[in-house]
Amino acid sequence: MFVLVNLKAYDCDPVAVAAAAADVAEETGARIAVAPQAARLGAVAATGVETWAQHVSPVAHGSHTGSTHADAVATTGAVGTLLNHSEKRLKLADIDAGLDAADAANLETVVCANNPDQIAAATALGPDAVAVEPPELIGGDESVATADPDIVRDAVDAAGEVDGDVDVFCGAGIATGEDVAAARDLGADGVLLASGVALADDPEAVLRDLVDPL
Amino acid sequence: MFVLVNLKAYDCDPVAVAAAAADVAEETGARIAVAPQAARLGAVAATGVETWAQHVSPVAHGSHTGSTHADAVATTGAVGTLLNHSEKRLKLADIDAGLDAADAANLETVVCANNPDQIAAATALGPDAVAVEPPELIGGDESVATADPDIVRDAVDAAGEVDGDVDVFCGAGIATGEDVAAARDLGADGVLLASGVALADDPEAVLRDLVDPL
Amino acid sequence: MFVLVNLKAYDCDPVAVAAAAADVAEETGARIAVAPQAARLGAVAATGVETWAQHVSPVAHGSHTGSTHADAVATTGAVGTLLNHSEKRLKLADIDAGLDAADAANLETVVCANNPDQIAAATALGPDAVAVEPPELIGGDESVATADPDIVRDAVDAAGEVDGDVDVFCGAGIATGEDVAAARDLGADGVLLASGVALADDPEAVLRDLVDPL
Amino acid sequence: MFVLVNLKAYDCDPVAVAAAAADVAEETGARIAVAPQAARLGAVAATGVETWAQHVSPVAHGSHTGSTHADAVATTGAVGTLLNHSEKRLKLADIDAGLDAADAANLETVVCANNPDQIAAATALGPDAVAVEPPELIGGDESVATADPDIVRDAVDAAGEVDGDVDVFCGAGIATGEDVAAARDLGADGVLLASGVALADDPEAVLRDLVDPL
Repeated sequence: MFVLVNLKAYDCDPVAVAAAAADVAEETGARIAVAPQAARLGAVAATGVETWAQHVSPVAHGSHTGSTHADAVATTGAVGTLLNHSEKRLKLADIDAGLDAADAANLETVVCANNPDQIAAATALGPDAVAVEPPELIGGDESVATADPDIVRDAVDAAGEVDGDVDVFCGAGIATGEDVAAARDLGADGVLLASGVALADDPEAVLRDLVDPL
Repeated sequence: MFVLVNLKAYDCDPVAVAAAAADVAEETGARIAVAPQAARLGAVAATGVETWAQHVSPVAHGSHTGSTHADAVATTGAVGTLLNHSEKRLKLADIDAGLDAADAANLETVVCANNPDQIAAATALGPDAVAVEPPELIGGDESVATADPDIVRDAVDAAGEVDGDVDVFCGAGIATGEDVAAARDLGADGVLLASGVALADDPEAVLRDLVDPL
Repeated sequence: MFVLVNLKAYDCDPVAVAAAAADVAEETGARIAVAPQAARLGAVAATGVETWAQHVSPVAHGSHTGSTHADAVATTGAVGTLLNHSEKRLKLADIDAGLDAADAANLETVVCANNPDQIAAATALGPDAVAVEPPELIGGDESVATADPDIVRDAVDAAGEVDGDVDVFCGAGIATGEDVAAARDLGADGVLLASGVALADDPEAVLRDLVDPL
Repeated sequence: MFVLVNLKAYDCDPVAVAAAAADVAEETGARIAVAPQAARLGAVAATGVETWAQHVSPVAHGSHTGSTHADAVATTGAVGTLLNHSEKRLKLADIDAGLDAADAANLETVVCANNPDQIAAATALGPDAVAVEPPELIGGDESVATADPDIVRDAVDAAGEVDGDVDVFCGAGIATGEDVAAARDLGADGVLLASGVALADDPEAVLRDLVDPL
């Protein structure tokens, strides 16, 4: 199981969360990555944690002011990127081009989507993984794996029918090790987390609990 | 073969083009549809031609100022809609929701895309048809079916692998009956046309030539 | 006072609302316009009511699939358009280009904005009118003119400092003749209405009440 | 005169350009800033050069995946940001909210625009400066100050009529010290540069020439 902690634009210390994640990953052998704001990628990567971007732009080098260029991301030490998160929905053509940009910079890719149909569509574009996050559960108190287990199963099936080599993650409301285990039991290869870790009083304790069942 | 004439925002008389298309369709038995500006759907439908929208918004009834609501489109007599044309690229989630909106209004749907990967993705969303239009050939002098036959074949294959019930159209540079026949021979179920008809001195003559080989 | 009824994508009969508005306008001499979906502009204009678009695209004639071209709008009989409604926010450059497109088609223009600073900005672009609609009051039960009279006064002042020839409208929560009178007393030259008329059991009665104090 | 070097997504070494700019600024006393990709802000700021962002998102802290949060930008040592560059055009409401976000993070702001009307609109939103860049001259061989001096004069006048405290910059095609002097003589308070410095064989030599007349 891959545990990806998305720090969004939260009012948190990304370096402190990253250091906690690096410690837990090293001690437990779990794979934990942290995705901070683009401006903080270098500081996060310097902690030694596996570092991901929250987004890269669907562009090659050139006149693209205000873009998040995949090469600039990779130069900081980041090794992967989310694409099409529900808070940064992209045009279909731009997901495709964003995957090309990420591939060119040797970044791993996870394309997010709302439902199994969109998961199938995202899988057809050839990312390393897809992630299903029902918008109505994001930021909520109940884990997708218990609130809507069918959507996880259906997403796993939908991706598998298109391309069995693409991993499937799930996210929304995941907060505990039980939630992670439930996601795994539904066929997920990883989980996306956000406020449950980023805004916790003790992110390290939360992360230890999260990876405990793995 | 389905011949869909997209009038875009061209400086043409949509009613005259529609009347010509209605005549040619009736005389030849070919299936020809015309897609005008939303504001002209009613006037075009009144000619008796099969009428399509160029786009519908991914929304249900409600507070959506400036949207193109599928029900309003259907009320004019239109029976189908393009989605995700290269000049109106949509977010993946909005193609999905646009298909839902079109279905609820009983509109047929064609989702456009740039390349075979995106065609596979679009097919996974369950439209009636997908259409491949290489952006670099749109508006050009050479037909996609002769300039890049592989992209048509690959699109047909890519769609077929995901869902064999989804038709595949192609577009870009199609101007003559030979182009239409070439597209058909590559496996396409229809063609998208635009300036070749809309801006022709004699749209009726162009349409007769286009459907002649069918 | 100008009363502009925005039908958005509401589940209502735009022709029935338009006919009611035409009757009330004729009997009372009040200026009432109706803004339906683009696809219904022709049907609404046929009632004889002053007809407005909810949006026009910032483009000239050409390859703009899915756009709402100002000329197509004007051809239906519509005489004006909203731009930058809070449900269709536009880029600054596109408001500017949308005004050019509307002017070229002889459409009157009202540019909407959230607050007095944005009203000043919109006024600087030279529309016929600007309209302030606080987003938090849209669709609510209380009129902007009573819930936040200062924003109306400040918008009138802000527009006046930039260009005294630009009219100022207000909208959000306006439902009664008293609300319209209050808006007028704050310096507004018109009001924007939506669900209060469009979704009323008896739109004609609501409109009569609205223009009664004028 | 303020010289702001926008590195866009160019294939250049931002740290090398920044170090050159820091050297020239220190030796000559000229004010030179460098705006790299968000992911490289920290590395650029570490050279000691005045560092700017190319964009900040119109959001406060919260669930905004893939945003460029002003606080994250400021934490890297950056002190200012562009907004609404022609390659990152923003909705009017988002320029306004982006200025609020930048102000909250104590970032200086320059809002870009195409023409004098939009410059007046941008000025009304209260940034520290506005910058006029005619899109047709960007990336070209001729300086805006010689190719279209009237647009610079008109922008200076348009901004001055709305708010005399807002500085006016210009950009597009500026490559030499003569161009900078010409911009100054037209009333500009600063210039935006990009490829002329970023892609130069010897950025330091170009910068020395640029600030030589100041």
